[in-house]
Amino acid sequence: MPLDNLAKKLGVPKSTLHYRIKRLERDGVIEGYYAKANPLKLGYDYVAIVLVRAKYGPHYHERVGRKIAAVPGVWAVYYVLGEYDFIVLVRALNREDYMHKLERLSKMADIERTSTQIAAKILKEDPRITV
Amino acid sequence: MPLDNLAKKLGVPKSTLHYRIKRLERDGVIEGYYAKANPLKLGYDYVAIVLVRAKYGPHYHERVGRKIAAVPGVWAVYYVLGEYDFIVLVRALNREDYMHKLERLSKMADIERTSTQIAAKILKEDPRITV
Amino acid sequence: MPLDNLAKKLGVPKSTLHYRIKRLERDGVIEGYYAKANPLKLGYDYVAIVLVRAKYGPHYHERVGRKIAAVPGVWAVYYVLGEYDFIVLVRALNREDYMHKLERLSKMADIERTSTQIAAKILKEDPRITV
Amino acid sequence: MPLDNLAKKLGVPKSTLHYRIKRLERDGVIEGYYAKANPLKLGYDYVAIVLVRAKYGPHYHERVGRKIAAVPGVWAVYYVLGEYDFIVLVRALNREDYMHKLERLSKMADIERTSTQIAAKILKEDPRITV
Amino acid sequence: MPLDNLAKKLGVPKSTLHYRIKRLERDGVIEGYYAKANPLKLGYDYVAIVLVRAKYGPHYHERVGRKIAAVPGVWAVYYVLGEYDFIVLVRALNREDYMHKLERLSKMADIERTSTQIAAKILKEDPRITV
Amino acid sequence: MPLDNLAKKLGVPKSTLHYRIKRLERDGVIEGYYAKANPLKLGYDYVAIVLVRAKYGPHYHERVGRKIAAVPGVWAVYYVLGEYDFIVLVRALNREDYMHKLERLSKMADIERTSTQIAAKILKEDPRITV
Amino acid sequence: MPLDNLAKKLGVPKSTLHYRIKRLERDGVIEGYYAKANPLKLGYDYVAIVLVRAKYGPHYHERVGRKIAAVPGVWAVYYVLGEYDFIVLVRALNREDYMHKLERLSKMADIERTSTQIAAKILKEDPRITV
Amino acid sequence: MPLDNLAKKLGVPKSTLHYRIKRLERDGVIEGYYAKANPLKLGYDYVAIVLVRAKYGPHYHERVGRKIAAVPGVWAVYYVLGEYDFIVLVRALNREDYMHKLERLSKMADIERTSTQIAAKILKEDPRITV
Repeated sequence: MPLDNLAKKLGVPKSTLHYRIKRLERDGVIEGYYAKANPLKLGYDYVAIVLVRAKYGPHYHERVGRKIAAVPGVWAVYYVLGEYDFIVLVRALNREDYMHKLERLSKMADIERTSTQIAAKILKEDPRITV
Repeated sequence: MPLDNLAKKLGVPKSTLHYRIKRLERDGVIEGYYAKANPLKLGYDYVAIVLVRAKYGPHYHERVGRKIAAVPGVWAVYYVLGEYDFIVLVRALNREDYMHKLERLSKMADIERTSTQIAAKILKEDPRITV
Repeated sequence: MPLDNLAKKLGVPKSTLHYRIKRLERDGVIEGYYAKANPLKLGYDYVAIVLVRAKYGPHYHERVGRKIAAVPGVWAVYYVLGEYDFIVLVRALNREDYMHKLERLSKMADIERTSTQIAAKILKEDPRITV
Repeated sequence: MPLDNLAKKLGVPKSTLHYRIKRLERDGVIEGYYAKANPLKLGYDYVAIVLVRAKYGPHYHERVGRKIAAVPGVWAVYYVLGEYDFIVLVRALNREDYMHKLERLSKMADIERTSTQIAAKILKEDPRITV
Repeated sequence: MPLDNLAKKLGVPKSTLHYRIKRLERDGVIEGYYAKANPLKLGYDYVAIVLVRAKYGPHYHERVGRKIAAVPGVWAVYYVLGEYDFIVLVRALNREDYMHKLERLSKMADIERTSTQIAAKILKEDPRITV
Repeated sequence: MPLDNLAKKLGVPKSTLHYRIKRLERDGVIEGYYAKANPLKLGYDYVAIVLVRAKYGPHYHERVGRKIAAVPGVWAVYYVLGEYDFIVLVRALNREDYMHKLERLSKMADIERTSTQIAAKILKEDPRITV
Repeated sequence: MPLDNLAKKLGVPKSTLHYRIKRLERDGVIEGYYAKANPLKLGYDYVAIVLVRAKYGPHYHERVGRKIAAVPGVWAVYYVLGEYDFIVLVRALNREDYMHKLERLSKMADIERTSTQIAAKILKEDPRITV
Repeated sequence: MPLDNLAKKLGVPKSTLHYRIKRLERDGVIEGYYAKANPLKLGYDYVAIVLVRAKYGPHYHERVGRKIAAVPGVWAVYYVLGEYDFIVLVRALNREDYMHKLERLSKMADIERTSTQIAAKILKEDPRITV
C-alpha cells in the first residue's frame, strides 16, 4: 500500500512503478517482502559471531558451509580467506540456547575448532541495501 | 496484500490479525516493512568482515562504535569481548569501492588496527527471524 | 558463635536470623562453612592458570571438563568460548608437584594442548562473595 | 560447633584441638571463617576470566595489579609471565553489570588491552584447600 | 638488436660484449630472454600471497614444495623457517579463477592449512636484478 | 631475432606479428625486454619475505608503500588486507647485506613492526606470465 | 697452572684451595674443565633457536626431549610451559648444514611443528656462571 | 696438565700441540679456559627464556641488545628475525631473584613487551663445541 506514495515521491505513474517492480521480482533482484523485526524485543538476547576452522578436503568450503548453514539460529555463513575458514553469525535466546547451537557445530566431524565472539553490544544491524 | 492469505492460514479473523500487527508495530517489535534485495544482483560484489581494534578510553565502545556505524557500506557493527573490539560487516561494489570505505575506517584516530576478511563465498545471508 | 554478634549488628532477633540462615542452607545458597586458609603459609608455592584446548566431540565440554576437575590440585575449571576451551586453576606445592599434575592433564587423550601461565605474584585471591 | 565432632574424629582431646586452631589463627595460616555461598543462586550469572595487557613501567605489576584488584567484582588478580600480564577473575550479575566493571578496567591509562573469556559453564569452583 | 647500443654505452667492442653474453648464457647466469608483460593489462586482477602449513614428514619441504609449484597460477614458492612452511605467490584472473587454484592447493593431503592475503594494491613488482 | 622463428611457429606472416607486438608495446601490455638472470649465480644468497605492520594514517598505504619500494633490494611490495599491512620481497647478497636493508626499513617512523621470513629454499620463482 | 695465581688472589694457601676444588669436583658442582672456543671462528655461522611443539603422550617431555637432545648440533633443550613445548638451541656451519639438522627434527613422529628463529646477531653468549 | 695425555691421544709431540694451542689462542679461536659448573648445584633453580619485543629506531638492535646483555643473570642475547626481536637466556636463584631481573628489563624504555618461558626441565645444556 505504500505504492501510491512511492509513485508520487518518485514522480512516475503508478503503473510504470508497478511494472518495474514486477520486473525486478522476475529478475531476482527483489527476493520477497517482509517485516523487519527487532530481535531484542523478540527475546533474542545472545548474538554471537563464530570463527570456524574446518578440516581440509575436496570442495570442503561448499560441503561444510552448507552443513553449518543448516543449524537453527545460524543466519549468515561466509567462507573467508584468512586464518579462519568461515565466519558465522548466530542468534540465540540466551546462553543455554546458544550452547545447544554451538554443540551442533562442535559435533561436526568436519569442524576442527570454533572461536565464539559474544556481541556485548549491537551498535548497528541493518542489512537493508540503500539504493 | 498478503494479509488475507495470512489470516486464512493462521485461522484467525482478518481484523484480529490486523489488530495484533498494529500492536507489534506500536511496541517496536515490527520496525517496518521492506523488500529483500539480492546484493549480488545489485552489483555488490565485495563483502568483507572487518575485525577492528580500537584505542582504549572512557566509553570507547559507544563512541567508536557509532563512528564506525556511520561509514557508508557498513551495515553491522558488533562490540565483542575477545582479541578484537568490533566485528564490522561491510558491503561494497568492488575492490576500489571497498578501499575507499576501508580508508575511512583506517583514518579514525580511535582505530588501532583492522584485519579484513574477504568473503570468497556467501553460503547464507538471511537476517529474517523465524518465529 | 558469631551468631549473637551478627544478630545485634543487623538489628534482628537471634531467632529470626537463625531461621533465615537455616532457610539459605536448605535452598542451597549456603553450601557449608569453613576456614579460609592462606595457601602460601601451607606451602603451596606454585599457582598456575592453565589454558586448555580439547579435542572436539559430542558433549565434549562436559566429559572433558569433569575429567580435568578430578585431577588433584585443580580447584577451578571453566569452559570458555574463545581460542581455548577451558581455563583451569591449579595449586601445587612446588614445580615438581606441579609437573606431576600437568602430566596427568597432558596424558588425557581428549586434550590437544595446554599452555601454563605461572602466577609470579598473587595480588588478590578472595572468592568470598560480598552481599 | 563442629569442634566436638572434629575432636572425636581426629582422636585428640578437644582442648588440644582448640589450642592448635588458635595457633594456626595466630600464625596466619587460618585467616577467618565463613560460609561458602553458591554464586549462581545469588544471581551472579556472569563469570569472566579477563586476560590483561598493561603498559610497562617501573614496578608496574604491583601498581597496576592493585588498581585492578580494587574494581568491584574482581575477586582474583594474578600477575603472570606470558603473553599477557594479568589474569583476572570477575563475577557479575549479568552482562550489563559486567560491562560496567569492564568499563572501569578499560578506562585505566595503564591498561593496553583486555581479552574477556566468558565462562559458558563452571565445571568446578572450589578454592578450599584439602589438607 | 639493442646489442649495438649496449656496446656503445659500455664502451667495449661489440664482439667482446657478444662473447661475454654467450659465456653468461653458458654458465647459467642468463637463463633466457623475454618480454616483461603487465599482468593487470592482461586481465590478471587477483594477486594473492598464500601462507601454507604442511604436514611434517621426511623431506617434506621438497615433496610438498614441488606439488605446490605445479599448480597453474603459482609463480613463486618459498620454503621458509617460521610459523608457516611455504610462502606462495599466485596470480589469477578474478576471484572465481583464484578459488579454483586455491581448491587445488586445499585438496592436497600434505597441506594442513592455508591463509590467503589478497594484494589490494601492488606498489612494486619488478623481479629484474640490477647489476 | 626469435621473431622469424615465432612467426613460423604461430603460422602468421612476420609483418603481422611485428605489427601486433608493436601494438602491445604501445598499449603498455609489453613493458620491455630483458634477460632473465639467475639470482643465485649472481651471488644473491639471501631471499627474504618481510611482513610489515605500518602505523595508520590518511592514505598510509600509498605513502608507506612507496617508501618501502624505494629501499634497494626490495623488488616487490604488496599492500594486503590481513594481520599485516604489506608483504615485501627482498633480495640480498648475504646476511650482512640483508641487515643493512632491514635497518633501512626499521628506521622508518611509519613502520610499527616487521617479521622476516628467510627463504631456506626456493622451489620456484618465475614471474613470467604464460599466455 | 693458574692455581698458584688464584691462591694468591684469594689469599688462601694453595693446599686449601686444592682441597676445596677437589671437593667441588666430587660433589658434582664442577663438572670438568675445558677451553671456551669462539664458534664464529670455527665456522659455525648459523645459530638458530627453534620453538618446538610436540604431540602429547605419557611422559612425552622426557622421551621427546631426549630424542631432540641427541640430534648433532643441538646443544640446549629446555622443556617450557607456554605456547611451545621445547626451546632448542642449534649450532650449524651454514644454511645447508642447518637444513640437515632441521630435517632430523621434522622427521620425528612426536614433533608436530617447529618454528626457527635465526639469530641475525649474537650480542652475548657466555654460559659461564659468575660466583 | 691434561696436555701430556692429549698429546699421547692425538699422536703428536707435546711441543707441536703446545704450539698449535698457542696459535689458536692468539687467533681468538680459544678464548680462555674455565671450569664447567653445574648451575643447579650452585642454587640456580630458575632458568628462563625471555622473548623480547623492542621499540624500533636507528640501530636499535645494537643499542637495546647491549643494554639487555648488561643485566645480571642474562647470559645470552640473540637478535632474531621473527615475531620477536630478541631471545634472551636468563639464570636466577629463584622466582624472587628472577622477578628483580625481569623488573630491570621491563623498566627499559626501549622494551615494548616481554614473554617469559620458564624452563620446567633442562634436558640438555652443553655449549661446548665438538671439534
